[in-house]
Amino acid sequence: MSFLPHLEALVSSVDGAIAASVMGFDGIAVETHQSKSGGVETAAELDLTGAWVEYGNLLQQLKNVAQTLKTGAVAEMSVNSDKLITLMRLVTPEYFLVVGLKPEGNYGKARYVMRITAPKLKAELA
Amino acid sequence: MSFLPHLEALVSSVDGAIAASVMGFDGIAVETHQSKSGGVETAAELDLTGAWVEYGNLLQQLKNVAQTLKTGAVAEMSVNSDKLITLMRLVTPEYFLVVGLKPEGNYGKARYVMRITAPKLKAELA
Repeated sequence: MSFLPHLEALVSSVDGAIAASVMGFDGIAVETHQSKSGGVETAAELDLTGAWVEYGNLLQQLKNVAQTLKTGAVAEMSVNSDKLITLMRLVTPEYFLVVGLKPEGNYGKARYVMRITAPKLKAELA
Repeated sequence: MSFLPHLEALVSSVDGAIAASVMGFDGIAVETHQSKSGGVETAAELDLTGAWVEYGNLLQQLKNVAQTLKTGAVAEMSVNSDKLITLMRLVTPEYFLVVGLKPEGNYGKARYVMRITAPKLKAELA
């Protein structure tokens, strides 16, 4: 069970990535990696953990709502606010991957790398 | 107050767009346009309206939560499920723009066109 190398690879390969985390839907982070280049200060300043717990709660609701909708299971959600882009992707029914980007960060690359990283994390969780 | 031309332009300029709508946070659509090329059947099949009312409810919660977070006001949210990509963008505190895309649709283009369209809709709402 080693998530850190995957989170480090994710953060370092996406321009503008501040931090990435594997979180449970109970709001508890299993593992987090913050970018060396200003990620720690920015993450603290924006209180990323606080935001992610709230967003995770909404993703949980979405997951539940999706069962009554005809649009299929929810795989991914993103929230873009003034100071932060947050992308979330389901890893298992209990855990999700979350990445925080600066607003000018590479959104498309982040989505792509998350899609590749999620199955690797799932394998570690097994 | 003429939203339809903006919604038509949006749907026709984004590959894979099924429908677009201006919705209030009360869950009522002010105006909707569905793509001529299969949009009507797909929108009915996926029950887009049902999904959007639920998603709008979550966006409302996000908007409220954002006031307690340090990440700034929420401008945009997207939910990607198996059969549908949904993008939402705040137009005013009461109304939002929502677009449904096929999973293989042009996500980046949709975000871009929504960013341009939102101020035009806001002007119509005034």
